[in-house]
Amino acid sequence: MKQKEFHNIKSIQEAKKIFHYNISQEPPGHEKISIHDAHTRTLSKDITAPIDVPPFDRSQMDGYAVIAEDTFPADEENPVDLRLNDETISAGTAPRKPVNSGCATKIATGAPIPKGANAVVMIEYCNEESGLVAISKPVHPGENVMHAGQDIMQGEIVLRKGRTLTFRETAVLAALGITEIEVFKSPKVAVISTGNEIMPVGKPLPYGSIYDTNSQMIMDACRENGAIPHFLGIAKDCEKEIENLLAKALDYDIVILTGGTSAGEGDISYRVIEKTLNPGILVHGVAIKPGKPVVLAAHKKKPVVILPGFPASCIITFNVFIKPLIRSMAGLLEEKTAEMKAKCAIRYPSAEGRHEYVLSNIIKGRDNKFYAYPITKTSGAVTTFALADGYIEIPKDTQYIDKNEELGITLLSDNLVPDDIVFIGSQCMGADLALGMLTQFSKKVINVGSTGGLIACKRDEPDISGIHLIDGKTGTYNKPFMEPGLILVRGYVRKQGIMFRGGYSGRSLDDFLSDRKLTIINRNNGSGTRILFDMLIDQFAGKNGLDADEFKKNIKGYNIESKSHNSVACAIAARKADWGIGIYSAAKMYGLEFIELRDEHYDFCMPKSRFHKKSIQGFIAVLKSGAFKKKLEALGGFAVPKDIGKVIWDS
Amino acid sequence: MKQKEFHNIKSIQEAKKIFHYNISQEPPGHEKISIHDAHTRTLSKDITAPIDVPPFDRSQMDGYAVIAEDTFPADEENPVDLRLNDETISAGTAPRKPVNSGCATKIATGAPIPKGANAVVMIEYCNEESGLVAISKPVHPGENVMHAGQDIMQGEIVLRKGRTLTFRETAVLAALGITEIEVFKSPKVAVISTGNEIMPVGKPLPYGSIYDTNSQMIMDACRENGAIPHFLGIAKDCEKEIENLLAKALDYDIVILTGGTSAGEGDISYRVIEKTLNPGILVHGVAIKPGKPVVLAAHKKKPVVILPGFPASCIITFNVFIKPLIRSMAGLLEEKTAEMKAKCAIRYPSAEGRHEYVLSNIIKGRDNKFYAYPITKTSGAVTTFALADGYIEIPKDTQYIDKNEELGITLLSDNLVPDDIVFIGSQCMGADLALGMLTQFSKKVINVGSTGGLIACKRDEPDISGIHLIDGKTGTYNKPFMEPGLILVRGYVRKQGIMFRGGYSGRSLDDFLSDRKLTIINRNNGSGTRILFDMLIDQFAGKNGLDADEFKKNIKGYNIESKSHNSVACAIAARKADWGIGIYSAAKMYGLEFIELRDEHYDFCMPKSRFHKKSIQGFIAVLKSGAFKKKLEALGGFAVPKDIGKVIWDS
Repeated sequence: MKQKEFHNIKSIQEAKKIFHYNISQEPPGHEKISIHDAHTRTLSKDITAPIDVPPFDRSQMDGYAVIAEDTFPADEENPVDLRLNDETISAGTAPRKPVNSGCATKIATGAPIPKGANAVVMIEYCNEESGLVAISKPVHPGENVMHAGQDIMQGEIVLRKGRTLTFRETAVLAALGITEIEVFKSPKVAVISTGNEIMPVGKPLPYGSIYDTNSQMIMDACRENGAIPHFLGIAKDCEKEIENLLAKALDYDIVILTGGTSAGEGDISYRVIEKTLNPGILVHGVAIKPGKPVVLAAHKKKPVVILPGFPASCIITFNVFIKPLIRSMAGLLEEKTAEMKAKCAIRYPSAEGRHEYVLSNIIKGRDNKFYAYPITKTSGAVTTFALADGYIEIPKDTQYIDKNEELGITLLSDNLVPDDIVFIGSQCMGADLALGMLTQFSKKVINVGSTGGLIACKRDEPDISGIHLIDGKTGTYNKPFMEPGLILVRGYVRKQGIMFRGGYSGRSLDDFLSDRKLTIINRNNGSGTRILFDMLIDQFAGKNGLDADEFKKNIKGYNIESKSHNSVACAIAARKADWGIGIYSAAKMYGLEFIELRDEHYDFCMPKSRFHKKSIQGFIAVLKSGAFKKKLEALGGFAVPKDIGKVIWDS
Repeated sequence: MKQKEFHNIKSIQEAKKIFHYNISQEPPGHEKISIHDAHTRTLSKDITAPIDVPPFDRSQMDGYAVIAEDTFPADEENPVDLRLNDETISAGTAPRKPVNSGCATKIATGAPIPKGANAVVMIEYCNEESGLVAISKPVHPGENVMHAGQDIMQGEIVLRKGRTLTFRETAVLAALGITEIEVFKSPKVAVISTGNEIMPVGKPLPYGSIYDTNSQMIMDACRENGAIPHFLGIAKDCEKEIENLLAKALDYDIVILTGGTSAGEGDISYRVIEKTLNPGILVHGVAIKPGKPVVLAAHKKKPVVILPGFPASCIITFNVFIKPLIRSMAGLLEEKTAEMKAKCAIRYPSAEGRHEYVLSNIIKGRDNKFYAYPITKTSGAVTTFALADGYIEIPKDTQYIDKNEELGITLLSDNLVPDDIVFIGSQCMGADLALGMLTQFSKKVINVGSTGGLIACKRDEPDISGIHLIDGKTGTYNKPFMEPGLILVRGYVRKQGIMFRGGYSGRSLDDFLSDRKLTIINRNNGSGTRILFDMLIDQFAGKNGLDADEFKKNIKGYNIESKSHNSVACAIAARKADWGIGIYSAAKMYGLEFIELRDEHYDFCMPKSRFHKKSIQGFIAVLKSGAFKKKLEALGGFAVPKDIGKVIWDS
């Protein structure tokens, strides 16, 4: 394998400078569109009012058009009588007669003011009788009249170039009678996936292949920023295939390839670009983490890039290099979110010598400030950014970020806002059910197990942690782990046991542990279920005079960790493992057999600071509801105590 | 005119309760859609992972697949030699041979780990030679390997019902190979405009008519909230027409009529609904300002509403009663913006006995908090909400809102954020030009004249005020009006004069003032141009022994105020007036003649607190640029001083 090294890594600033010097960032042009399609588009020209709005002096009330001076002596005791003209001006009809001194004309809201009149008396202060109207309240000149052009005057610039149109602006266009406007053309982006292992979504997945994730992600990210993406297909690692697709792609305004930048043997895209484009490669390798192998290139001022194949690297480099470019070409403004600030919730060691973008959960703290919790999963994981709300930026020569240090954050999507409820803790179908019933709030669920949830709670990170932690000494659940600053709310009781496919009925835990041919699927370290399982193995090893650690090492599958009861049950049902520990409801869902081991308490721990949030109180109301009890019990293996939803520990 | 009175005004809470009891807020159903159309839609069902991601143990690096334990003794001085299997596993290919102790297989990023191997050594620490590879750094078991299901495990709930899909979520769906998902159907909204005076946009406008603004506004507001609007047309004030359109509208999920609620003579919609629907009218009249005449009705659980015809009343009642309904039916969450807070920037007296929504400019103050500046224009004006960023809510029994009192604010559009530059002051084509050249920032321009701009600046309201105020005593411009807390930046010099159509050449200002047959168009009170004009009239009156106030009263058109130079020029060109005062560039643009009166200084005043904003520094950079000078001088009547952009007064 010939390894191409990154000899000439650039800083982000250098890379952008070289890239921008060689490409055009101008919008691909303008187009005329109908006002009906104008919503969300961006004006490429100022709009000057072609008419006055309103186009005539207009009554703002139902009432009587008068000469204001005639009403000056009027009060409730001494109304002024005016002679009525024999017409009623309704909206949309032209007045026939002028209002002379001593006269009045009946007029409706929106109708044109007749000649001579300079005010309208509201109907509430008028009394009509036999050709006269008695006015009991004076009006001043101009009262209840909107003059022609008072709202918008012909010739005014009402909307400016660069304005993205919401209903506010389209309403103004309509009021002015404008049917057609000039907007920036949306840039068209060609997207190509590359790699022998990449399969189109929907096709069967041969061993060693993965689904094409990046093209979907990049296309939707293009849509969010005003571009129109076109997917040209997946190219195998073959020069000819990439050449063909690239030739087609050059008809678009921007070309994005993904995958194939790691400089390994299979990286053909780089060589194709080098060979066929002019000037071709501008930058290969940027001091950025993740995303170092990004390639920036150009062909006759047209931007062409290869984004790294790992999803997190792909989206970060998209955001840094492509998103601003697309927005500029779409005539959109820089994103506002770029200016947001967050505090780093933990001390975070930085990548040496690279500007680092750390995908993070953004959570609103008790001080109403944003806190960023870096996600430490690998950039190869899809869920790294699927869980992330945004990323923090750590400049190149920073050794570490201190806890509470303020950093710039960028949200992944414009519309992304921190969720109403962040649940971090032990996965449970009961908690899933309660969260699912809480439809009016947005939720983020991070399954890290009971221990991880408790630690997060102590750091004030989640709104709720579901935990089931047994205290070895007392045998009681959850309460012994409480600390000042926390609150514990009673949850429910669930049955933990052994899950397995049919055929092992009648066996005990000891039988399962003794059968060395069987493969288990384990739970993640720190989960309450794992703690229980390890406790039970320790007891078994003790009973049989075995070294517990050595024994665990020899259980087939002990090191394969699953994050949820469901996925344990699913793995057993799919014959990837023979048995595992989990709750009854998961076993039932996947048609597995179940041997009960113990009843355990699954409760909800939360930082005291969050307890009064509307969303948390809503969650507790769901727990207490009859509907929840009914649905939970129907899952099987759950028992709902009378005091569910009650605070059982407070600091 | 029979006036129907609002006998039974409800509070907002009562109105909502009655309305919600009689309608269904459930989504109109679910539909299956392709992942390619999924972006921005909302899941109606949880998504459970159908496969593991990654689906196999996968190398995270280019390197060599090994048994970690074999590498433990390795270091730079004493590399460990391993025998190479004669295959290279590239991404997408299945390994043929297992890795036994003492062996290694070359492997690419993304390729499946061969049987037996449990780690990958990065290529940087390997040296291949004649069938052997020398490893100079040990790896631990699992290093550089992503295990099957480590990212997402089969059976996990990865996305929950109610999640609106951004590129984050669609990427996860793609990674799982999911091609089709179930989402909530978008509610379909029928929109009908009513009123004899309402003309479709694009048609000629007969006297007394106005363009249909509300249907465009309501349809785009529906789109912003996940509904699909359908416009059924404009009904004249005629029972039969409204009945026909209403019958068609009942095929949709929600029916919105606008106009025709003021309870005056022309209000037929109300009677048609009362007559034809079941149960029909639920609420007529709500204690809300603006929007009191809103009608809430239902037909067999289907919501039907009549929104008031005034645009501001229409959009406020839409936001209060319809938007939450549409979002609920579209499966969307409540809007986050509802929870935002702003301080009221001025003392504001409230409407007696009505819950008031006050359309406001939202501005970020120097303390980074939002400040709301109530817009005091009438609800009949389109620009009231076109200028507004959102509205503040004043509860029913509040007499007034104190300055700096904190209130809930609702932004008009989800995506609406305060503009980067708020310009409040005197309208000038030069300032328009500079703002137009500052493409990377969003701008709001409010033309209130020099005096209004200066007052706003003292209240810390705008970022920039363009002013040209002459001090009567000293004859100097702008500087004499400065106060602590302000900064004055040098602008340019412009020619003020008399604008008129051809035919009056050779006349002087005195000639124009003496000709009582001519009609003028005046500028708004407080504008620098108006101050100049009034000063000149005072001098003329003094010279001729006339009472200046009396004289002004008798000038035809003196009371017609226009907000900009352009609209003065436009009115003269359109023969609505004969002459006016303005700057040369406006006269030139409209082909008018021009008699110079004086050179005046147009400078930029700003609150000191804003001076260092990126957008302000950008604005000053534009002023100083050669491109601005060239373009400004090309407009005619402008002179650019050497020190343009310099701070000429600082406190």
